[in-house]
Amino acid sequence: MSKTNDSEDHSSSSFQFPNSERIYIEGSRPDIRVPMREVRLNVTRSAAGVVEENPPIRLYDTSGPWGDPARSCDVYDGLGLRRREWIIERGDAEEYEGREVLPQDDGYLTEGAREYALKKDRGRLEPFPGLRRRPLRAKSGRAVTQMHYAKRGIITPEMEFVAIRENLGRAAAFETAKDRDRLNFQHAGESFGASLPRFVTPEFVRDEVARGRAIIPANVNHPESEPMAIGRNFLVKINANIGNSAVASSIEEEVEKMRWAIKWGSDTVMDLSTGKNIHETREWIIRNAPVPIGTVPIYQALEKVGGKAEELTWEIYRDTLVEQAEQGVDYFTIHAGVLLRYIPLTAKRTTGIVSRGGSIMAKWCLAHHEESFLYTRFRDICEIMRAYDVSFSLGDGLRPGSIADANDEAQFAELDTLGELTAVAWDMDCQVMIEGPGHIPMHLIKENVDRQLEVCHEAPFYTLGPLVTDIAPGYDHITSAIGAAMIGWFGTAMLCYVTPKEHLGLPDKQDVKDGVIAYKIAAHAADLAKGHPGAQYQDNALSKARFEFRWEDQFNLALDPELAREFHDETLPQEGAKVAHFCSMCGPHFCSMKITQEVRDFAAQKALDEQEALRTGMREKAEEFVQLGSEIYTKA
Amino acid sequence: MSKTNDSEDHSSSSFQFPNSERIYIEGSRPDIRVPMREVRLNVTRSAAGVVEENPPIRLYDTSGPWGDPARSCDVYDGLGLRRREWIIERGDAEEYEGREVLPQDDGYLTEGAREYALKKDRGRLEPFPGLRRRPLRAKSGRAVTQMHYAKRGIITPEMEFVAIRENLGRAAAFETAKDRDRLNFQHAGESFGASLPRFVTPEFVRDEVARGRAIIPANVNHPESEPMAIGRNFLVKINANIGNSAVASSIEEEVEKMRWAIKWGSDTVMDLSTGKNIHETREWIIRNAPVPIGTVPIYQALEKVGGKAEELTWEIYRDTLVEQAEQGVDYFTIHAGVLLRYIPLTAKRTTGIVSRGGSIMAKWCLAHHEESFLYTRFRDICEIMRAYDVSFSLGDGLRPGSIADANDEAQFAELDTLGELTAVAWDMDCQVMIEGPGHIPMHLIKENVDRQLEVCHEAPFYTLGPLVTDIAPGYDHITSAIGAAMIGWFGTAMLCYVTPKEHLGLPDKQDVKDGVIAYKIAAHAADLAKGHPGAQYQDNALSKARFEFRWEDQFNLALDPELAREFHDETLPQEGAKVAHFCSMCGPHFCSMKITQEVRDFAAQKALDEQEALRTGMREKAEEFVQLGSEIYTKA
Repeated sequence: MSKTNDSEDHSSSSFQFPNSERIYIEGSRPDIRVPMREVRLNVTRSAAGVVEENPPIRLYDTSGPWGDPARSCDVYDGLGLRRREWIIERGDAEEYEGREVLPQDDGYLTEGAREYALKKDRGRLEPFPGLRRRPLRAKSGRAVTQMHYAKRGIITPEMEFVAIRENLGRAAAFETAKDRDRLNFQHAGESFGASLPRFVTPEFVRDEVARGRAIIPANVNHPESEPMAIGRNFLVKINANIGNSAVASSIEEEVEKMRWAIKWGSDTVMDLSTGKNIHETREWIIRNAPVPIGTVPIYQALEKVGGKAEELTWEIYRDTLVEQAEQGVDYFTIHAGVLLRYIPLTAKRTTGIVSRGGSIMAKWCLAHHEESFLYTRFRDICEIMRAYDVSFSLGDGLRPGSIADANDEAQFAELDTLGELTAVAWDMDCQVMIEGPGHIPMHLIKENVDRQLEVCHEAPFYTLGPLVTDIAPGYDHITSAIGAAMIGWFGTAMLCYVTPKEHLGLPDKQDVKDGVIAYKIAAHAADLAKGHPGAQYQDNALSKARFEFRWEDQFNLALDPELAREFHDETLPQEGAKVAHFCSMCGPHFCSMKITQEVRDFAAQKALDEQEALRTGMREKAEEFVQLGSEIYTKA
Repeated sequence: MSKTNDSEDHSSSSFQFPNSERIYIEGSRPDIRVPMREVRLNVTRSAAGVVEENPPIRLYDTSGPWGDPARSCDVYDGLGLRRREWIIERGDAEEYEGREVLPQDDGYLTEGAREYALKKDRGRLEPFPGLRRRPLRAKSGRAVTQMHYAKRGIITPEMEFVAIRENLGRAAAFETAKDRDRLNFQHAGESFGASLPRFVTPEFVRDEVARGRAIIPANVNHPESEPMAIGRNFLVKINANIGNSAVASSIEEEVEKMRWAIKWGSDTVMDLSTGKNIHETREWIIRNAPVPIGTVPIYQALEKVGGKAEELTWEIYRDTLVEQAEQGVDYFTIHAGVLLRYIPLTAKRTTGIVSRGGSIMAKWCLAHHEESFLYTRFRDICEIMRAYDVSFSLGDGLRPGSIADANDEAQFAELDTLGELTAVAWDMDCQVMIEGPGHIPMHLIKENVDRQLEVCHEAPFYTLGPLVTDIAPGYDHITSAIGAAMIGWFGTAMLCYVTPKEHLGLPDKQDVKDGVIAYKIAAHAADLAKGHPGAQYQDNALSKARFEFRWEDQFNLALDPELAREFHDETLPQEGAKVAHFCSMCGPHFCSMKITQEVRDFAAQKALDEQEALRTGMREKAEEFVQLGSEIYTKA
């Protein structure tokens, strides 16, 4: 990472949204401060000249300290240790001398090879210069997982933080809004059996975590993260994948993509790096991430054996888990459900095994003709997970990679095994979510969720898309947002984004943004359809602004205020157009909203309520209206 | 339209797709020639060196003569009269001296005003220089609609054309593919009561048109168009809206947008122009359009009364219908269901009346305190429609403009009236489709389709989106593609696209393309979920190409081959990468598809079928595999 060559703005100034303020809601103790973004709105001026306030709208904010203009963050320092005190004061974790970081961790077989690479390309290998800490882990025989506390009835600060965070729009939706505005109107949803409380209490969070229906990914070595929950009875979350590969990308790009992903609302970020400098890339990302970070440890383990899957061993894998747990990774994708007997089920598929982790393990299983160490050593893995509170993300190594392979025997066989493993992990107080597909035509999506909920005992589902057709490479953020919205509605807790580059190349910053926005849409559409309390508040506020020609408010309430304004500028660049009472699409004569406003104003002025409109259909009313004519419209 | 200033490529060369050929399937007579695009694929080379052919894939092609490299089309000439003979030989239509085109038709109150405008900005007003014909209409007392013929048991060339066109992929899907390829595998769908035949026969088309379950929009004065069907039991279609407004855009841009929309696959195009030069814009578009063109005649009628809705009269509206019918418009949006008593139902809505046509009629109704002439003169309108075979698109003037207003009393009250009017129109042999919303949360979408099918007697449904959330202006092609895919699955026959500029500005060419592609995705996803016979063939072929690292084939089978290739080039620009046996995402070590290929090759070489894999889990097999090692991979 080179300071001088850096053209990007790494400060928090690039995180500011127009007319928005970073606020904090304080919990039961002063160090529980939950960040939110509050969008200030303009007043409504009716035709009659009446001025009415519009309450500010609170939005869920994943940007952490980066989004706080009062803090000056720098990627070279990392973020503060907001959660460390909570961990220490529980008294069940201790610092220890961590594992030594080796050249192999970054893909170099000797220190000499690393030095040589460092010399040749010094910018890219600069180690993270911020605070290096000794790692924490559970004291011998203890578990430090949120599930462990939850099962024992303990409400942690993390749980309280989550409760406040999840309620964000509700207080406003239920209390502030006046009925006249229809701001607090919301359709009854169809939640397919989810249990959505009107208000989220800390006790509710505890109960959901204890039952395994939600997880709070929160490694004790990632105190920079702000607690969040993944569960069917909370807001639907999204994940953004980043990561370099042997072919392209670099560390600074990856850190920037992480920052970019959380600016636009990604709830977690997975670092899927392969190739060189995996360890160092991850260090930069975690130290700067206010959201949970996930990885697929088998990728790094494979680098350590020079890419030869059959040479992987439990010892190398175990060492990698500890290495990453000490760094602070919050959840691990582990493809422990790829059993030897399932592999032949994929041989006649259209696209075989498309999961990287799944295919690595399949190759290992075939080479050794025995079950993988991910399965045989599952309890040993649990011991590590519970010592750091790394959550399981049980990977679907046999997920379908094409419409043709959706919902086949291989996929569902593996799911059954993931269900068994869930029970084992829970027994050891480990937090678990389950990964899901992939490519599925719309009519087969619900079956996936229903089976997952059943065989995995309601552990949170975490799906990639799914893509509902294979024919649109270049647009798979859209093919998959369709499936993601539906699967989120049916009960998936977190949606892993797909970018436009899927199947074709590595996502750049624009792709990351496009993917995140498409998935924010999908997740929110799912919340609306589930009837998530308060979810419709933002829609109502934006539509009210749209209808009242409060253009700035419409932009500012949008998922992407910058683009909304830019698009409007393309057609009507004048500043005056931002307060004009007509739309750029139709011009002053044609705007239907303007005409409706006239209809409504007319109705108001004449006290024409619904009954009267039906009863007093008289000529005089008509003539009065004609006299008022099209002159009602007053230029802004 | 100015030839000299023209930087666009108006020839058909810009319509060519890589490795694609324009083919024609001939019907029962030589002048029934149905165009399709056939994508040629490369051979598959297995690791063992076996070479296998991949059959070419036929795609539905909406580009008309523009997509035929053997024809040299020019927008100044217009397209050929491919359908005129069929109309003439039926002997029930006659040429007549059409209505004189007046300055008012283009929004000028006098000829002097038109001349003045012409002088000031001569390029934009150049009249269409191609062939001007005397219009055709039904002989006195006759009807020339496809429904009229269908009810009498007549199979028209239009119907046969449609039957051949709809079958495109099926012959290949059922006959060409070998089982081994899984090319012809398709999931059983869930069609919610649609009647999808295995093969579409001309008789099936006739029957669907006779029952009113499908329409073939085909004005006798638009012989340039290629017949297509809109109906629940056919492929789901999409429409692209174009059109200038008083604020922005110009004629040449609109013609170019039409050509652009059909290049990317739009099945029909609506010209929603307002402001000046409406008549001339439309002339340019229709004379160059191989797809049906729709309009909303009330927009032009309003221009003729200077934008004052209350001054609209039946006479002016009637004159506009005739004017547009003579030009060749194939379907008219008519908001005849906006009744006086429904208007007050919208007063408490979050976004009132958002349909332009709906709000114009609402204003008229309030001003006159009587039912609109669209309703009271509905039979007179039918007389015009049947004389030219203009199809009704009964407009939903009270469609919801926000999530809050979805599925409310106003919307469904109007739908009931549209159902009544459908019966009237059918009684007079007029073809009818019904327009639908708008903004609907996912869980309320199905109710819309179910009610529409019921109260409108299965007349084809034609919906705008719907958008499943209001919070993403700038991305409403995505918010609405989610709803469109679902509503298409549930039974909507045609999906009206929404571009990223919706709510913000006028779409430019890029927006038109983005909207069309998003809707091609939605329509195809709907076909897949319905289990439309043969629909999965393209997905299977593309996924097979993807799995076999036939990169070029993967690009060429995509909805947008150009973008797919461009994205791949960004990461791996070298030409060699297009035949490389690894993906740009993971690099050579990590590619899961490569590993699966190895697993599969290994299984093949060892004749390890499913039984053997389970039975012979012996050490020697394992050792053999280790010896073969990662060297199986042979560089391309």
